[in-house]
Amino acid sequence: MEVGFLGLGIMGKAMALNLLRSGFKVTVWNRTLSKVVFEKDGILEQIGEGKGYIDMSTVDVDTSSRINEAITNKGGRFLEAPVSGSKKPAEDGQLVILAAGDKVLYDEVVPAFNVLGKKTFFLGSVGSGAKMKLVVNMVMGSMMNALSEGLSLAVSSGLNQETLLEVLDLGAIANPMFRLKGPAMIQASYPPAFPLKHQQKDMRLALALGDKNAVSLPVAATANEAFKRARGRGLGDLDFSAVHEIVKTIQSSGDAK
Amino acid sequence: MEVGFLGLGIMGKAMALNLLRSGFKVTVWNRTLSKVVFEKDGILEQIGEGKGYIDMSTVDVDTSSRINEAITNKGGRFLEAPVSGSKKPAEDGQLVILAAGDKVLYDEVVPAFNVLGKKTFFLGSVGSGAKMKLVVNMVMGSMMNALSEGLSLAVSSGLNQETLLEVLDLGAIANPMFRLKGPAMIQASYPPAFPLKHQQKDMRLALALGDKNAVSLPVAATANEAFKRARGRGLGDLDFSAVHEIVKTIQSSGDAK
Amino acid sequence: MEVGFLGLGIMGKAMALNLLRSGFKVTVWNRTLSKVVFEKDGILEQIGEGKGYIDMSTVDVDTSSRINEAITNKGGRFLEAPVSGSKKPAEDGQLVILAAGDKVLYDEVVPAFNVLGKKTFFLGSVGSGAKMKLVVNMVMGSMMNALSEGLSLAVSSGLNQETLLEVLDLGAIANPMFRLKGPAMIQASYPPAFPLKHQQKDMRLALALGDKNAVSLPVAATANEAFKRARGRGLGDLDFSAVHEIVKTIQSSGDAK
Amino acid sequence: MEVGFLGLGIMGKAMALNLLRSGFKVTVWNRTLSKVVFEKDGILEQIGEGKGYIDMSTVDVDTSSRINEAITNKGGRFLEAPVSGSKKPAEDGQLVILAAGDKVLYDEVVPAFNVLGKKTFFLGSVGSGAKMKLVVNMVMGSMMNALSEGLSLAVSSGLNQETLLEVLDLGAIANPMFRLKGPAMIQASYPPAFPLKHQQKDMRLALALGDKNAVSLPVAATANEAFKRARGRGLGDLDFSAVHEIVKTIQSSGDAK
Repeated sequence: MEVGFLGLGIMGKAMALNLLRSGFKVTVWNRTLSKVVFEKDGILEQIGEGKGYIDMSTVDVDTSSRINEAITNKGGRFLEAPVSGSKKPAEDGQLVILAAGDKVLYDEVVPAFNVLGKKTFFLGSVGSGAKMKLVVNMVMGSMMNALSEGLSLAVSSGLNQETLLEVLDLGAIANPMFRLKGPAMIQASYPPAFPLKHQQKDMRLALALGDKNAVSLPVAATANEAFKRARGRGLGDLDFSAVHEIVKTIQSSGDAK
Repeated sequence: MEVGFLGLGIMGKAMALNLLRSGFKVTVWNRTLSKVVFEKDGILEQIGEGKGYIDMSTVDVDTSSRINEAITNKGGRFLEAPVSGSKKPAEDGQLVILAAGDKVLYDEVVPAFNVLGKKTFFLGSVGSGAKMKLVVNMVMGSMMNALSEGLSLAVSSGLNQETLLEVLDLGAIANPMFRLKGPAMIQASYPPAFPLKHQQKDMRLALALGDKNAVSLPVAATANEAFKRARGRGLGDLDFSAVHEIVKTIQSSGDAK
Repeated sequence: MEVGFLGLGIMGKAMALNLLRSGFKVTVWNRTLSKVVFEKDGILEQIGEGKGYIDMSTVDVDTSSRINEAITNKGGRFLEAPVSGSKKPAEDGQLVILAAGDKVLYDEVVPAFNVLGKKTFFLGSVGSGAKMKLVVNMVMGSMMNALSEGLSLAVSSGLNQETLLEVLDLGAIANPMFRLKGPAMIQASYPPAFPLKHQQKDMRLALALGDKNAVSLPVAATANEAFKRARGRGLGDLDFSAVHEIVKTIQSSGDAK
Repeated sequence: MEVGFLGLGIMGKAMALNLLRSGFKVTVWNRTLSKVVFEKDGILEQIGEGKGYIDMSTVDVDTSSRINEAITNKGGRFLEAPVSGSKKPAEDGQLVILAAGDKVLYDEVVPAFNVLGKKTFFLGSVGSGAKMKLVVNMVMGSMMNALSEGLSLAVSSGLNQETLLEVLDLGAIANPMFRLKGPAMIQASYPPAFPLKHQQKDMRLALALGDKNAVSLPVAATANEAFKRARGRGLGDLDFSAVHEIVKTIQSSGDAK
C-alpha cells in the first residue's frame, strides 16, 4: 500500500516512522495542515475517483462532515480516524484509533492502523470518531478536576498529598493519569502534554453536543467552568492539569474560619 | 499476639479468617457494633492500662476522637484503621489500611496488618485515617458521575456505550471501577457493593471538611447533589453507581430540540 | 415619520397599534419574518441609500452583524433594538428598548421608541443590544432556579410555600418575577409566557459569550443544566418556570434518609 | 405588657427604642448574649411557671429546640422569632418577623411585634422560624451570585455595568438588593451589612437541611462553593456581596482566547 502523509507534527512524525519501519511506502507532504483540504493547490485537487483520504487529526463533527462531503463529491473516499494517546504511544505504535466513515476504505487500511495502534475501532458514519473523542475527553476533564479537588482537600486537612496519590493508586480508581499528573501537580509543574485551552475547547464541544440532544451534564459543566477560569488567568498554554492552580485554595492566614 | 475481634460482617469474617490462617490467636465477639464502645457492658469496661483498641470500621472524625478520648482516659491505647477495599480484597488479604493514632500500638500490630492488607499507611494523629478515607471517596464519587455523564452523552449521540467503555479502558484514565461498574450501569443493574446512601454520606462529610477549611470543591458539590437526588428517588440502598439513573436522560420523543 | 412594520406577532401588533395611536404613519407587511432580510424579494432589495432598517426582534450577535453588513453595503442604515418586556408592557408602551448600531438613525427614531417603551438605551455598536439581552436573561434564568430550589427546600422542610413567597415579597429580594411566577409554580401551572426552550437557548448563548471571553459562570452553567434536563423531559414549550418540575424533589416514601 | 430586653446590638437598640416609644415598659439587660440561656445566673434561672421567653436572634434549628426544651421543662413558654431586615427596617419598625413556637404566647405579644415589624408570621412549631430564614437566605445567596456573574459577563463583553443595573431595575427581576448592592460591587466596595461568613454559614445550614431531606439544590450548592472560596481568600468579614471578588474574572492580557 502506498501512503501519503500530510503534516509531520510530534504525532505525525512518530506515526510515519512506524509505517516506514513496517515496510509501507510513505510519501510525506510537510505543509501546514490548516485549511489544507479546501485551499488552492490543496488536497482536494488531488482527489479523484476511488482515492482515499484519512484524517487522523482531531477535528470537530461539522468540519469532518464538510471534508467528507467535498471528497465524496469528487468521487473520493473519506475516513476520519482521530487517535487517543499522545507522543509516547505514537512512537510505540500503541495508539487507540477511532475510525469512522467509509467502511471499505477502513478495511483496506487496517494493516496500517495495526502498525500505528494497539487497537482500532470502526465506529460508523463520519462524525462518530470525533464524537467518541469528545466523550472521552469530557470524562477525562471531570476526572482531572476530581483529582485536583482531592489534592486540595487533602492538603487543607493536614494530609500528605503524596500519600493520597499512593492510596489512590492502590484502589479501585487507580489510573495512569493520576499516576502521571498527580506528582507534577503537587509541584505546580504543568509542562504542556495536552494544552489546557484544547481540553477546555473539547469540553465546550462535548457540552454543546449534549445541549443539542438535551442531555444534562452538570459535573462536566462545572469542570468546564474551572477550565474556563484557568484560561482567563492565562494558563491556556500550560498542560490541562494546570486547572489545579484554580482549584487549590490560596489559604489566607486570616479569617478563613 | 492475641487478637480480639469484634463484629463479623462480610469484611470482618474474611479478615478474621486470614488472621487465623496466619497463626494469630483470634477471639471473636459477634455482637452488634453500634454503640458497642460506650454502652453498658461495652468494650470500654474491658479497657485497662496499656490495652490496645483498634477500630477498622469507617467512622467520622468526631466519633473517632471521642472513642480515642474515652480509651486513653482509661489508660488504653487507640488506633483507627479504616480500610480501602471491599469483600474480595478482604478475602485475599489485599486491603489498603489507613491507620492513625497511637504509633507504638501501630508498630506492634503491623504484623497483623500485613496479613490483612497489601499496604498499610500510618497517617498521624487520630482522625487522619478517617479524613483520608473521605478524600478518596470524594474523588471516587466525582469520578462515578463523570463516567455516568460520559455514558449518557455517548448513547444520546448515537455511540455504543460498550465501545466507550472499551476505549476508556485502553487510555490514560482506565481504572478498575469503570471496568467493573460500567457494564452493569449500561444494564441498569446496581447490586449494592457500596450503598449509595453511604457514598452520599461520605461526600457530605468530605464537603463539610472542606467547608471547615474554606476549601471550594465545586465538582464534588455538584456530584453530591446528584447523589442526593438519587437518594430522594429512593435509590439509597442500591449501589452508588445507581446515580446513573439520575444522570442519564430519559429522552422524550417530543420537543427535546 | 413613515414607519414600515414587518411581522405582526403578539408583540408587533401591540407595538404597531401604539405607533398608529400616536400619529405615526405605519405600513405593515405581515409576512413570515424568517430569512426575510436575505431571501428573494426580501427586505434587502428595498434597501437603498440612506434608508433605515430597525430589527426589534431578539437575534443573536452573529445574525445581527450579518444583517448590518448587508444593509450598510447597500448604503442603508441599521439599528438593532431588542426589547425587554412581554405582551402587557408592549400594549402599555412600557417596553425597555436596547438599541445599538447607527447612532444617527437612533436619534431619528427616538420619538417612536418613546411611544413603545418607558425607557430606551443606546448601547453602542451592533451586537451590544443582543449581548445586553443575553446577560439579563442569564441572570433571570439563575434567579428562576434560585426560586425553584427555595420552594423545594421549603416544602420538604414542612414550610408553607405560599408563606415563603409572602416573606420573599416583603424583603430585599422581592421582585415581580417571583410574585408572578411563584404561585403558578406551586400549582405546577406553566402557561408559556416565555418558552423554556428559548430561555435555555439564551443561557446557552450567554455561556458561549462567556466562554469566548474566558469568563467562568458556574451558577449560570448549573442553572443551564437544569433547563437542559427540563428540555430533555419534553418541557421545552412550557413556560421557563417549568424548570421547577425538574428541581422539585419527587419524594419517595422509602429510604430518603 | 412588661418586656425584658436582652442584648442591645444594632438591631436590639432600635427595636427596644421603638417599644419604649409605643408605651411598652421595657427593662434591658445589656449582657453578652452568647450562652446566656444556659449559663450560671443565666436566663433559665429566671424562668418560672407561665413566663414567656422570645428569641429574636437567628439561631439554628437545633439550638432553638434545646432552648425550647429547657424553658418548657421549667414551666416557661418559648417563641422563636428571627427577623428579616437589617438596621434601617429595625429603626423604622419595618421588620418582617418569622415567629414559631408557643401560639398563646405569640397571640399575647402580637402588639409588640406590630410595633417592631410591618408583618408578622406565625409559622408553627419551634424550628420553623429558623428554617424559613435559611430558605430565604439561600435564595438570596444564589441571587447574589447571579448578579455577580451578570456584571462579570457584561464587563467582559464590552457592556457598561451601570447600564446593566439600570436595565435590570426596569424589568421583571428588579429588586432592592440589586439596586442597593450593584453599584457598590462595581466599585469593589463591600462594607459589611451582612458579613459573608454569616451568609456562607446560612447556605451551609440550608444545604444541610436539604441533605437531611434528600433535596437536590445544585444552584445553591454552586453558589455556596463561591462563598467558600471567598472565605478562603480572607473576605469573610466583608459584606456577602464580596463574593463578586471571586466571581469576576481577572482578565489576563495574554492567551485568554
